[in-house]
Amino acid sequence: MPRERVSHLDGHVYEFGPEMDPVYEADDGESVTIETIDSLNGAIQSDDDLLDAIPEEVNAATGPIAVAGASPGDVLAVDIEAVRVAEDRGRVLTAPGFGLLQDDPEIDHPATRVTEVEGGGAVDGEAGGPENGDGGRIDFEGIDVPIEPVIGTIGVATGGETVSTLTPDDHGGNLDTTDVTGGTTVYFPVFQEGAMLAMGDAKAAMADGEMCGTGAEIAVEVDATLSVIEDPTVSLDRPVVDTGDAVKTLASAETLEEAVELANGDMLDLLAHHHGLSRTDAYLFSSLVGGLEVSQVVDPQVTARNAVPSEYLSLPF
Amino acid sequence: MPRERVSHLDGHVYEFGPEMDPVYEADDGESVTIETIDSLNGAIQSDDDLLDAIPEEVNAATGPIAVAGASPGDVLAVDIEAVRVAEDRGRVLTAPGFGLLQDDPEIDHPATRVTEVEGGGAVDGEAGGPENGDGGRIDFEGIDVPIEPVIGTIGVATGGETVSTLTPDDHGGNLDTTDVTGGTTVYFPVFQEGAMLAMGDAKAAMADGEMCGTGAEIAVEVDATLSVIEDPTVSLDRPVVDTGDAVKTLASAETLEEAVELANGDMLDLLAHHHGLSRTDAYLFSSLVGGLEVSQVVDPQVTARNAVPSEYLSLPF
Repeated sequence: MPRERVSHLDGHVYEFGPEMDPVYEADDGESVTIETIDSLNGAIQSDDDLLDAIPEEVNAATGPIAVAGASPGDVLAVDIEAVRVAEDRGRVLTAPGFGLLQDDPEIDHPATRVTEVEGGGAVDGEAGGPENGDGGRIDFEGIDVPIEPVIGTIGVATGGETVSTLTPDDHGGNLDTTDVTGGTTVYFPVFQEGAMLAMGDAKAAMADGEMCGTGAEIAVEVDATLSVIEDPTVSLDRPVVDTGDAVKTLASAETLEEAVELANGDMLDLLAHHHGLSRTDAYLFSSLVGGLEVSQVVDPQVTARNAVPSEYLSLPF
Repeated sequence: MPRERVSHLDGHVYEFGPEMDPVYEADDGESVTIETIDSLNGAIQSDDDLLDAIPEEVNAATGPIAVAGASPGDVLAVDIEAVRVAEDRGRVLTAPGFGLLQDDPEIDHPATRVTEVEGGGAVDGEAGGPENGDGGRIDFEGIDVPIEPVIGTIGVATGGETVSTLTPDDHGGNLDTTDVTGGTTVYFPVFQEGAMLAMGDAKAAMADGEMCGTGAEIAVEVDATLSVIEDPTVSLDRPVVDTGDAVKTLASAETLEEAVELANGDMLDLLAHHHGLSRTDAYLFSSLVGGLEVSQVVDPQVTARNAVPSEYLSLPF
């Protein structure tokens, strides 16, 4: 059976809320290809295209996709098989009032640098362009940077609140987490029937932290398999990723201090279950291996994670 | 010439200040071996030894060592060749009012777990015990953890203030940074004649973040070569490490938000110099590769870093 392709042209959202209308209904276990537009809807095509302010509508997220059988309390597993860049350029930029060093007088706000895909890239949506690990590169002012795509915004319908695609929270959203790429499975708590997965805001490359406020923003296509885990042994309050090398809990909050506290707390649940440890011993052990990581420090809420190498932890589903 | 050995028994400090009396005077370029005691001065030897409060004197730092020719404005390079554990056990513990999850009602404060070096370790100071990369392991409640030593406290005389060895700042101090291990060169700004290097507070293993407040605290011996870089091309305000794989700026502040802002700003100086970029372009580039990392979130100031892979950055000295 050919994979269904779900494009931003079929439907996209700028908010995650409790009630979302699906543009496609996937079977449990179905593999789909999801096409996304860049976070700025193609408005920035040259260094002369400057962003004077963050638009009201940003990070268009293709979807939502309902997954059959997903019910509140379940876990949705999004197994990301590949992320391919789908245009010939990305763009990295500053905008006034945005970014870690927005008050630095020596840094221009706004400023744009287009990052061309070397060799011109493959822009045909059907053929697909470079994906992570295949040696593709972008050019930043003469410096080669490997294409290591990141899906910046990915999430599910919320438990009640309505959240802009600019903001990450327990439902996912604008997590801007470098681990969300080909080879990673992302696990979300399911808050609503069908889960209602949507994603967009990809980058050809991004640093942990996303300091200037963007990576190299680019359209991509994503191959993913969507599966429902009913009645999970350990319930999730927030997203978790399994990169193959490590399991990482993700948490978003107003401050990094709050985010790392949540991520560490979530990790203790997983470590205690896996090893049969008390919460105290799980905490002591968490202070010995892997550790805290920064996803992004620039969105309305920031995102951090707690990583534990796969040698010490596998998920119970 | 045999290496001079400088032990905590020869001298140690619990504060870094502007005026420090050296216990040894090293030549520029001299290789020494530095012996340290664990951060709690051997007070914790079994799971029954509990820490009711952080002691007034903690993180004894062996030294200081004056390095001939080091003057304010220079950079001191500490090339760490090896770190060997020097006793048969470490200890990981909580104490009341300390640690990331100190308010979690399900976590015991205090609690101690001794982590024995497998095979009993080599406790003879002359012979040395396991070092990073040689396959040594400690045991945490039946879970094997590789010995990857970390020098938790390492620093130089300050520009003016007096700072406890519990606190990290621009002079270094309690940086609790996993990269500070064998194979890494740590660069410090020199604030006083002779630089006045001191170090201690090592761990057999530690997670990024040091969430419970400690790693597996252990005595070590450190082989290091100390060199003065006069009139550096780029002046340093804070420590920088070169792990061989990446260059990382380190910054400590009251909040992680402030620490990552400082670390990113310092990194822009290095990127702009190396690539001849404007500060704006250095900032945009910094948002594409490597990124922000967490050193520790539990000391009176927290510590973060900005890493850039060595492919994109080498230090100008």
